[in-house]
Amino acid sequence: MKRNALASLVVLLLLVLVAFRPASGADVRHEIQFPNLPGYQTVKCDLHEHTVFSDGNVWPPVRVAEAWRQGLDAIAITDHVEYQPHKDDVPTRHSRPYELAMDAAKASGLLLVKGAEITRETPPGHFNAVFLKEITALDTKEFLDAIQRANDQGAFVFWNHQGWQGEEKGRWLDVHTSMFDNKWFQGMEVSNGDEYYPNAHKWCLEKNLTMLGGSDIHDPDLRQKSTSQDHRTMTLVFVKEKTLPGLKEALLAGRTVVWWKDQLIGRKEWLEPFFQQCIQVRPPHLRLDKATWVQIRNVCDADIRLERAGDMGPAKLDLPAGTTSLVEIAAGKASGPLELKYTAKNFLIAPGAGLPVVLRVPGR
Amino acid sequence: MKRNALASLVVLLLLVLVAFRPASGADVRHEIQFPNLPGYQTVKCDLHEHTVFSDGNVWPPVRVAEAWRQGLDAIAITDHVEYQPHKDDVPTRHSRPYELAMDAAKASGLLLVKGAEITRETPPGHFNAVFLKEITALDTKEFLDAIQRANDQGAFVFWNHQGWQGEEKGRWLDVHTSMFDNKWFQGMEVSNGDEYYPNAHKWCLEKNLTMLGGSDIHDPDLRQKSTSQDHRTMTLVFVKEKTLPGLKEALLAGRTVVWWKDQLIGRKEWLEPFFQQCIQVRPPHLRLDKATWVQIRNVCDADIRLERAGDMGPAKLDLPAGTTSLVEIAAGKASGPLELKYTAKNFLIAPGAGLPVVLRVPGR
Amino acid sequence: MKRNALASLVVLLLLVLVAFRPASGADVRHEIQFPNLPGYQTVKCDLHEHTVFSDGNVWPPVRVAEAWRQGLDAIAITDHVEYQPHKDDVPTRHSRPYELAMDAAKASGLLLVKGAEITRETPPGHFNAVFLKEITALDTKEFLDAIQRANDQGAFVFWNHQGWQGEEKGRWLDVHTSMFDNKWFQGMEVSNGDEYYPNAHKWCLEKNLTMLGGSDIHDPDLRQKSTSQDHRTMTLVFVKEKTLPGLKEALLAGRTVVWWKDQLIGRKEWLEPFFQQCIQVRPPHLRLDKATWVQIRNVCDADIRLERAGDMGPAKLDLPAGTTSLVEIAAGKASGPLELKYTAKNFLIAPGAGLPVVLRVPGR
Amino acid sequence: MKRNALASLVVLLLLVLVAFRPASGADVRHEIQFPNLPGYQTVKCDLHEHTVFSDGNVWPPVRVAEAWRQGLDAIAITDHVEYQPHKDDVPTRHSRPYELAMDAAKASGLLLVKGAEITRETPPGHFNAVFLKEITALDTKEFLDAIQRANDQGAFVFWNHQGWQGEEKGRWLDVHTSMFDNKWFQGMEVSNGDEYYPNAHKWCLEKNLTMLGGSDIHDPDLRQKSTSQDHRTMTLVFVKEKTLPGLKEALLAGRTVVWWKDQLIGRKEWLEPFFQQCIQVRPPHLRLDKATWVQIRNVCDADIRLERAGDMGPAKLDLPAGTTSLVEIAAGKASGPLELKYTAKNFLIAPGAGLPVVLRVPGR
Repeated sequence: MKRNALASLVVLLLLVLVAFRPASGADVRHEIQFPNLPGYQTVKCDLHEHTVFSDGNVWPPVRVAEAWRQGLDAIAITDHVEYQPHKDDVPTRHSRPYELAMDAAKASGLLLVKGAEITRETPPGHFNAVFLKEITALDTKEFLDAIQRANDQGAFVFWNHQGWQGEEKGRWLDVHTSMFDNKWFQGMEVSNGDEYYPNAHKWCLEKNLTMLGGSDIHDPDLRQKSTSQDHRTMTLVFVKEKTLPGLKEALLAGRTVVWWKDQLIGRKEWLEPFFQQCIQVRPPHLRLDKATWVQIRNVCDADIRLERAGDMGPAKLDLPAGTTSLVEIAAGKASGPLELKYTAKNFLIAPGAGLPVVLRVPGR
Repeated sequence: MKRNALASLVVLLLLVLVAFRPASGADVRHEIQFPNLPGYQTVKCDLHEHTVFSDGNVWPPVRVAEAWRQGLDAIAITDHVEYQPHKDDVPTRHSRPYELAMDAAKASGLLLVKGAEITRETPPGHFNAVFLKEITALDTKEFLDAIQRANDQGAFVFWNHQGWQGEEKGRWLDVHTSMFDNKWFQGMEVSNGDEYYPNAHKWCLEKNLTMLGGSDIHDPDLRQKSTSQDHRTMTLVFVKEKTLPGLKEALLAGRTVVWWKDQLIGRKEWLEPFFQQCIQVRPPHLRLDKATWVQIRNVCDADIRLERAGDMGPAKLDLPAGTTSLVEIAAGKASGPLELKYTAKNFLIAPGAGLPVVLRVPGR
Repeated sequence: MKRNALASLVVLLLLVLVAFRPASGADVRHEIQFPNLPGYQTVKCDLHEHTVFSDGNVWPPVRVAEAWRQGLDAIAITDHVEYQPHKDDVPTRHSRPYELAMDAAKASGLLLVKGAEITRETPPGHFNAVFLKEITALDTKEFLDAIQRANDQGAFVFWNHQGWQGEEKGRWLDVHTSMFDNKWFQGMEVSNGDEYYPNAHKWCLEKNLTMLGGSDIHDPDLRQKSTSQDHRTMTLVFVKEKTLPGLKEALLAGRTVVWWKDQLIGRKEWLEPFFQQCIQVRPPHLRLDKATWVQIRNVCDADIRLERAGDMGPAKLDLPAGTTSLVEIAAGKASGPLELKYTAKNFLIAPGAGLPVVLRVPGR
Repeated sequence: MKRNALASLVVLLLLVLVAFRPASGADVRHEIQFPNLPGYQTVKCDLHEHTVFSDGNVWPPVRVAEAWRQGLDAIAITDHVEYQPHKDDVPTRHSRPYELAMDAAKASGLLLVKGAEITRETPPGHFNAVFLKEITALDTKEFLDAIQRANDQGAFVFWNHQGWQGEEKGRWLDVHTSMFDNKWFQGMEVSNGDEYYPNAHKWCLEKNLTMLGGSDIHDPDLRQKSTSQDHRTMTLVFVKEKTLPGLKEALLAGRTVVWWKDQLIGRKEWLEPFFQQCIQVRPPHLRLDKATWVQIRNVCDADIRLERAGDMGPAKLDLPAGTTSLVEIAAGKASGPLELKYTAKNFLIAPGAGLPVVLRVPGR
């Protein structure tokens, strides 16, 4: 009795000390520098994450802390509905990851999306359902029932890591056609962790599916911040308003770009204005008979790699993230504005195809 | 039925993929460069860590993975016996952290010590018991019973973070005298996480208690490696053999140095030979009328800060970890060997007291 | 003959390859993030640098390249007029550093100020003259003649590293009073390289002299960019227009802040609006009965260290450069806006005196 | 008069302060971790460097300071004999770079080799002569005279950057055959700065010429230390004794490996024992029915990339510099020693050909 009272007191004391405190390292956030688009805010999302409640290795609030410090704006914890290797120690309770992460999300202003991963055989493969109301309903016998129930709840559903077990296991089958015709999934991961799937990329373009990228993280994410060289795979979503409904609307409308390694992957429709916001070309400093020196600034957190597609400017232009490059252009005696035609090799508008861009140098 | 069989198959497949695989980031290890002492190997230990099984935020094998990649050799997971804030989701099972971490420890060759934190009121404060045989026995009503039972199992017991709630709550009471007289605790943390306790340091010297430093980590440790500027608080233990019994013997014998921030804290008896192994003074390159140039190499992973205590050599000598410093000495025309007297300010032999050292420059 | 023709050809070929090419590393610039003030642009300057033409170790265009890549906007090469230890190999020609650096400055858009260091006895000490028309005139017998001639040319003259040889040699003498009364010097370095001079700081405040900070660099500057932890000592000048005349006007008007190590040093008049531009306080995310969580963003490249001066908010607030901090405030049930009173410890408005600031948290 | 005396005094004072002081940044050295070979010490050399005395941008002692801090052991300053674009400001004096760098070299114990670059038309291309006695003699009308005179002085002569202006201009001509037959050049750069020349590599193998790599540095080298990711191009020379004669003997004997970017380039004869010294395979920690866990340590400062050439072990093994990797081997129930056959892809024994290696895992 006395012991219990004492223990309770200790518990209470410690709870007061730790309540609502985001996990260590969460107190300082490094914003990710990506521009907004005209009319849209850019929201950085990771909608594929795991915790100890399925086969992950962290307690749910850790996912909030690491996303916050790395500059993300929205996450979904998507523990496997069926695969629960820790269940002898952590009994299955599908709602708990979301509930346990909520206080930290509120305190830091992160959007926390309720989600789950429907994890059956491959094929048909694994699917994430996000913006769920209730997860337990997905714990059904039949795969398609689970998918349908997610849709009945108004979830946004996407096909995960399509090619992770090889293209043979990742092919498009009748079951996918049937789901697609029913509008039972609305997107696909074109990238998952370290992997990229050209077929998923192609199908997203052909079938007007939303492109997504997710970390699928199981272990702690050790990154303090997101840099061009070292960041998690994520989805940039262009929202009209930075709220959960605003995020869902943008996902359904397909307004996304995936940031995967040194690539930005998306529809030309979104990559084009995105590129324009990333680059600033300043008026030339020196225009001699033979050379013009131009400063080109890359204001975003991704390195940009350009290859000349026209007849003016250097053959290659590497513009490191957040820097200004001094570029020499053999531009003759012209004093008017110049147009330099390039291909942005790491802005992928289709598998293997970079974005055509024009750098406009103002006259002096 | 079919569904269960199917799920089991999926589970099996995934288990095969992940079995015995240390958590991500564990595959590359950065050794910590600290010298061995004549007759002893230097074992880097962290004997104070938590997991989701008490109030920590990671699954147990994560503790092995992070210790391994950071160059540690031995850890103890010491979840609170009494304080279990996650128990609604993770029912109390004291043996599980140790059991769950064991495979990863075996695969990577890390020494995993069975431990627990006896967490009652402060005062008397929290105590870690390591080298336990069985933890549940410590879940008793009375504090001293728990301590006694740990000792009955042959555990090494130490007083944690003595001053963490202020010196008033950390004072030495009759209960400590009684425990000490019974030899029921054998060491104290002089450092815990970011904190250092001068009183603990003093009492260890006076009462011949073993000095320890521990991380008391609850969240994931984000460090990829241990550097002079950024490492966890740990204990260097000088063992006769690198085994669990060898580690215990050395702890009981008090052969430790604590690495805390930019300080190495220990008895003069151990810091003195340790310093000698860290430093190499090379023969001078140039001895002119007025100056001798000497190269001093610091082969260890801790920066060393020296202040002149004699009449020769620069007033201050900062020797960064793992570098060679070029030092000018106004040594007259002498050609024989030189002795430079310094105090190693960050080799603490008592609170506020650096280690006196002599740098011997060979003759040329 | 033939040999000379051949050599000339080789020279020509190589010149074509290197002409107007800034020295290596200059092609990528890391902008320094410091805000503009209302009505003023912030120009980052280093008006104290040396080359092989006095006792420095680099060819003049290197000074442009290193300043450009580190994000500076304006430099002056100020080789010693009298002290020319390399003159057996590099005969004295005072105009050459400026001339040799000019092409690189033009190509990169850096403002290059013509300058020199008048280097006689200490006391009275060394003085930099910048915005000179012609340097040779300063190579006079008498110290005061050199100072007067610089002023006759319309130069901005400042007393360098006042305390570098100790306060005794850096004291204010009659000669300084006489120069000051003649308005023959208009500023002082409060910082030079690694040093800071409290007396210079005090005299600038008392006598309305412009505060400056300079690198006084002799060797190559190895920094790729300027960070809070590692940047050269420089002067931030608040200009009406970013031109040489605009820079001179601002220096004469005293609109400067010195960035030295982790300190920003200046008049309260300029540090106050500067601080306001550096900090963004966002509306709170969560206001419970007991706690409000507020995000505070430091958009500048200097860490900011705050200490509480009022009764609300954490005792200390460290806001690392370029990050957002999540801060818990025990604010009761209030829902209106809050005012948190702090002292910015590293915004020095006088020796030892930090800037009083108020963080305004909007209501929700 | 008085003015001159005063200036002399100032000069004297400053000289006392700077005499024998290596340029800034030189005071701390980061040793390069490359193993010695049985019977040989490994000396890290850069025998191709420029200063303001030809078309470089630094004062000669800077070359010593930067080499010393980066862990090099020997350098040659090899200013162009004929190409002197700074000569209006720095009159031609071929011996001065060596003389001016000597004090710093002595103080820091760096081996300073007297050298020059014979810079005529391409073809035949540029040649470095090192271990010269006197440089002016090379300032002749005819190219072959200069080469012969270098050889007459006992110099070691090598063909620089063979393919830098394209393979057409870098082809092997009669003049090269003639020089080769006369033994007038003994080596070639297989790498220069960022470039690698497969033809030079091939010819070195065929004609038994010594392989060299050099920085050809003109600007300041900004690197604080040499790392696997970021180091200058250099030559590792395996010497019997670490002296100038010892270095020359080893160069003439062809005992070199070139460190260029992520590649180590050399004869199989030297790369093979070098690899063996870089790698330590430790006894396995765990040998279950299906898996053996082995720790492989790479003690050198270059990452090592292995590809499986046999039937055991992972398909790829990346061993980062200075780390230990935990490797899973499906080794059945065997308990005896194992041999894992790999190709070290970045140990180039010929253009495009990696070194075959065997990793021997001891039995348990």
